[in-house]
Amino acid sequence: MSKKLLDTDSPVLAVDVGGTKIFAALFSPDGNILAGVTRPTQPGEGVSAVIDRLCAAISSLLGENKMAVAQLAGIGLACAGGIHTPRGVVVTPSPNMPDWVDVPLADIIHKKFGVRVFLVNDASAAALGEHRYGAGRGVKNLVLFTLGTGIGGGIIINNELYLGAVGSAGEFGHMTVAADGPLCGCGNTGCLELFASGHAVERDAAARLRRGESSVLRDMVKGDCDSVTAAQVGEAARGGDPLAYDLLARAAYYLGVGMVNAVNIFNPEMVVIGGGMAALGDMLLAPGRRMVAERAFSVSAGTVCIVTAALGNEAGVYGAAAFVRDRLARRKN
Amino acid sequence: MSKKLLDTDSPVLAVDVGGTKIFAALFSPDGNILAGVTRPTQPGEGVSAVIDRLCAAISSLLGENKMAVAQLAGIGLACAGGIHTPRGVVVTPSPNMPDWVDVPLADIIHKKFGVRVFLVNDASAAALGEHRYGAGRGVKNLVLFTLGTGIGGGIIINNELYLGAVGSAGEFGHMTVAADGPLCGCGNTGCLELFASGHAVERDAAARLRRGESSVLRDMVKGDCDSVTAAQVGEAARGGDPLAYDLLARAAYYLGVGMVNAVNIFNPEMVVIGGGMAALGDMLLAPGRRMVAERAFSVSAGTVCIVTAALGNEAGVYGAAAFVRDRLARRKN
Repeated sequence: MSKKLLDTDSPVLAVDVGGTKIFAALFSPDGNILAGVTRPTQPGEGVSAVIDRLCAAISSLLGENKMAVAQLAGIGLACAGGIHTPRGVVVTPSPNMPDWVDVPLADIIHKKFGVRVFLVNDASAAALGEHRYGAGRGVKNLVLFTLGTGIGGGIIINNELYLGAVGSAGEFGHMTVAADGPLCGCGNTGCLELFASGHAVERDAAARLRRGESSVLRDMVKGDCDSVTAAQVGEAARGGDPLAYDLLARAAYYLGVGMVNAVNIFNPEMVVIGGGMAALGDMLLAPGRRMVAERAFSVSAGTVCIVTAALGNEAGVYGAAAFVRDRLARRKN
Repeated sequence: MSKKLLDTDSPVLAVDVGGTKIFAALFSPDGNILAGVTRPTQPGEGVSAVIDRLCAAISSLLGENKMAVAQLAGIGLACAGGIHTPRGVVVTPSPNMPDWVDVPLADIIHKKFGVRVFLVNDASAAALGEHRYGAGRGVKNLVLFTLGTGIGGGIIINNELYLGAVGSAGEFGHMTVAADGPLCGCGNTGCLELFASGHAVERDAAARLRRGESSVLRDMVKGDCDSVTAAQVGEAARGGDPLAYDLLARAAYYLGVGMVNAVNIFNPEMVVIGGGMAALGDMLLAPGRRMVAERAFSVSAGTVCIVTAALGNEAGVYGAAAFVRDRLARRKN
């Protein structure tokens, strides 16, 4: 058969380039993961070293599955930071990968592998992943907050990923919720991320432990206050520790403020909460649900559903794969 | 010729029901205003009285132009408040019309005139008006803030009005920008409207005059501090009055915070500032432009243009007319 296969019949390779790990997966035409590989990101070694490991992950995934790169419909890359999607460039870095400034990632990967490469912000990818395969299936308009070390976001409008002018839409973590608040690393002031992210919880936990407040966290961190993690705070809170509970209540309050803002601005059918902190479940979400019911416009509060993400750490890679399909379909039309 | 005229060949009647006046206009099929009438709203007389005046305005506009209601493609209504567009109901009131709770306005007007009626939030209508006929022509994604007594907003995504699940999207005035701030009439806390609206400027001006601060405003209001208007503050600021200048600088600062949020969330090509306060021009906008350049994500700051609205008080009625055309076109497809 000499006829070239249609893009829709070909697999897609998608990679989520996170601050901790690189997760690459091969997707069947119907959107299932056929195989995946994980590599450490080790961003401290510099941009080139990370890109080398990213390329090695792609090559190894293809090799292990006896697939030639020419068989792919395209490669999708989800990456944190301020992304210029049409140019395929990581313009501004995320806190975890501070030296990623103006990195033409899509071009680099395209030159290496010779297939079409599409770059998208990781939280936007997660929103698309959840919309196509996760908690948001069939939902026309949704917003997603990713609560990890930082806070990202993604937006689905009319069943499609909304990226804005160049791919940087959805930065819910960097909306000011305290106009007189502290300066954020992004250059803005009083950003949501400063109050409701994993890093914020850890920063406040360490400070309060150092100040001498009593908590089971002190034993959990074996006296090393600065090593406390958001996961440990969650565990301690579940066990009834008052300090841990108070720390999460504060984060949940600010998350609620952010959700009320998103509900008043988007009147969405759904708000999805993803990222590592979403594992805290109702401990984090219940106050936000209450705040939306009490504070948001009643028209909007009455039509929104607030849920946790369904795809966990895989939302980004699912979304990056769906993004490739969407972009190729758009070119065809 | 017995063939029924197409909707696109028929005029549209659109009405902007504002807190001060009702402005009804007849639009030609190509979107020009053929004729208009203005009536006082006098919301203090109650919902029924306002609706009677609204109906009288429509009848009088038709009568004066020797037109039968059956000749219209439809009637578009732009109204402040929390609107449920599919149901055509004003669910929650705006501050200027506090007794408009659960008013099925579209049905009432439909029953009276027998043509299709479409209800849309006035700031959303203004965004559509500016997009089709004003400052935002040809702009794919834009957000509009209306700065009047309160602050409203509207959103254009992919060249279309974005209304959210039921028509309540775009409430930029009711995003929290000061999480520990005062309670807003809407039920939320620290809303942008409390700091950057005309009412906020007037409230703060009155308070500072009462406190005895010196200002030319004292003469302008002839000693009646509580009668001070945002327009007077603007006039005094233009004349170099330090108190007036300071009051506007504070409003401009918070407007800047709101614009940075909108830019980080939407990565829009354009932010349009409309409403009565937009007449202050660069006195209000320049600080916001600077803040967006300094504080927003550089990817987004670099691709946005911040301008004043072009249609003035007519944006809402233009948008309500365009909304009728859009809805009828959608039904046909």
